[in-house]
Amino acid sequence: MARILTGIQSTGVPHLGNLLGALEPGVKLSEQKDNTAIFFIADLHSLTSLKEPQARIENIRSVAAAWLACGFDTHQGILFRQSDVPEVCELTWYLNCFAPFPMLANAHSFKDKSAKQGLSEVNAGLFTYPVLMAADILLYDTDIVPVGKDQIQHIEITRDIASSINHQHGEIFILPKAQVEEQVKVVPGIDGQKMSKSYGNTINVFEEEKKLKKSINRIITGSEPLEAPKNPDNCTVFQLYSLLADTSEINTLRNAYLEGNFGYGAAKQILFEKIMEKYEVPRQKYMTFMQNPESIETALRLGQDKARAYATSVLDRVREALGFGSII
Amino acid sequence: MARILTGIQSTGVPHLGNLLGALEPGVKLSEQKDNTAIFFIADLHSLTSLKEPQARIENIRSVAAAWLACGFDTHQGILFRQSDVPEVCELTWYLNCFAPFPMLANAHSFKDKSAKQGLSEVNAGLFTYPVLMAADILLYDTDIVPVGKDQIQHIEITRDIASSINHQHGEIFILPKAQVEEQVKVVPGIDGQKMSKSYGNTINVFEEEKKLKKSINRIITGSEPLEAPKNPDNCTVFQLYSLLADTSEINTLRNAYLEGNFGYGAAKQILFEKIMEKYEVPRQKYMTFMQNPESIETALRLGQDKARAYATSVLDRVREALGFGSII
Repeated sequence: MARILTGIQSTGVPHLGNLLGALEPGVKLSEQKDNTAIFFIADLHSLTSLKEPQARIENIRSVAAAWLACGFDTHQGILFRQSDVPEVCELTWYLNCFAPFPMLANAHSFKDKSAKQGLSEVNAGLFTYPVLMAADILLYDTDIVPVGKDQIQHIEITRDIASSINHQHGEIFILPKAQVEEQVKVVPGIDGQKMSKSYGNTINVFEEEKKLKKSINRIITGSEPLEAPKNPDNCTVFQLYSLLADTSEINTLRNAYLEGNFGYGAAKQILFEKIMEKYEVPRQKYMTFMQNPESIETALRLGQDKARAYATSVLDRVREALGFGSII
Repeated sequence: MARILTGIQSTGVPHLGNLLGALEPGVKLSEQKDNTAIFFIADLHSLTSLKEPQARIENIRSVAAAWLACGFDTHQGILFRQSDVPEVCELTWYLNCFAPFPMLANAHSFKDKSAKQGLSEVNAGLFTYPVLMAADILLYDTDIVPVGKDQIQHIEITRDIASSINHQHGEIFILPKAQVEEQVKVVPGIDGQKMSKSYGNTINVFEEEKKLKKSINRIITGSEPLEAPKNPDNCTVFQLYSLLADTSEINTLRNAYLEGNFGYGAAKQILFEKIMEKYEVPRQKYMTFMQNPESIETALRLGQDKARAYATSVLDRVREALGFGSII
């Protein structure tokens, strides 16, 4: 019964790339009976860059609504808001006292930010956020952390701090293992680059139908005439469709491309219909959740209760080992 | 009704220098009806250097016992253990995200430690501890912080962070004022230098009678013969006595020094008797507290409840202003 922990960035309404790359695999993970999937919306982390309170709340609301709409199993798995378990901040302090300064100064994230923005623009939150991340992981006795390659260093930092404390104070922490996802699904955006909010090229599945259709119509394609046969393999519309449809549907569209007399407009219409079909239920659910924020809050509180039960038991262990709490 | 906050280092049984310089003025402060004196035993801070759990617990126990034995008014004032209000760690995270990296890198404490011990020996707790200190202060809507000159920078850092957040998010924090103690009582140790645990020259008032007598007998004095007149003003025994006795007693001893036929042994005996007389009640109380750690714990819990009530109200303000908590 492994505990698998994932942090969810709270950067706004998830787009198609997020859905295919993170939410759908996450929801599958949440349904597992053999393992416990723990997902948290990383609102504390967001403060290192985002200061605007209303934006933070809206981001959390729509991220939580999207995960729930996609079917996250809140009974089998755990979905919660990071700041709802403030014990993580207490653990962060303890870990800070075992984290050598140069280890953090040499972390990629800090070096990148301070090189880009200048040291005076970097805050202490950003400098110590690998320690908050370590606390996120260690607080729940996490066994496995699925990560992209760029995140491996954070797991190493976590293991370093935890090993050093275990070495001095007994086996307090479970050492987490990184599970590196070699094959990350690359979802192209409307300009053919990787779909990303920061590139402004996203398809927002949870948007109003008209707007969604508009963004699909904006996908950049070739400009061959209607009659000409077309190459599906370098067409973004086809690539997106391939990520959503089943094999026979994909083959049908492939043949239409190759045969000619089939325009990009028609391909876009097919893609649009596929998205509307596939995400019909999540779209409805999403709207219902967004209209009833209490129902989101209720779901997050359930997650909070479950996460907190894990957290307090680990934190009790830490306090006792380090000499905090009752003097009796 | 000002709130006056003081952190108490938890570095072991308080000695005579601590009693005269900190505990006794602190106890007086705790009895004030016009202000609220808030004292916390800084156990979270201690982790930046002290890792041994048993030592931490023993330190807290004897520090708390000493403050209570000296008569700290736990009903008028507030005495609590820092880690009993873990909200301070959550606030630390928020403040970290507004604390520019260079401000902390330029703090005296960090520069001193990294110069002395080498950067690799400095941990992230030590680097960010001015932010924990800022959280200590801001969490209780502190108006005044009595400080030595070497601590003024920490109040400036606190004010800087608080102002910057107030500027962006409205008047969340009260800006604390430093109350610089110009005239700090200098209490000499048995070697004539400032009494300090780190110099190994302390007189431990709460020690067993025999040991206490022994350390007084070890006070370094002149070596004039018994008959010779002696100068009280460069004698550590006389200086210590002057800090404890009333004017007429001091004059009597002064005259004995000046007249001669009065040895240092006799002076030490008089000092010993004065200490035993003055600290008779605190010594008895201290022993009782140490034999009944439950009574210490009970007193600290009372402080915890009162401190926490302040803390949660401030933290609620912070959370709301920064966009943490419920999304409804």
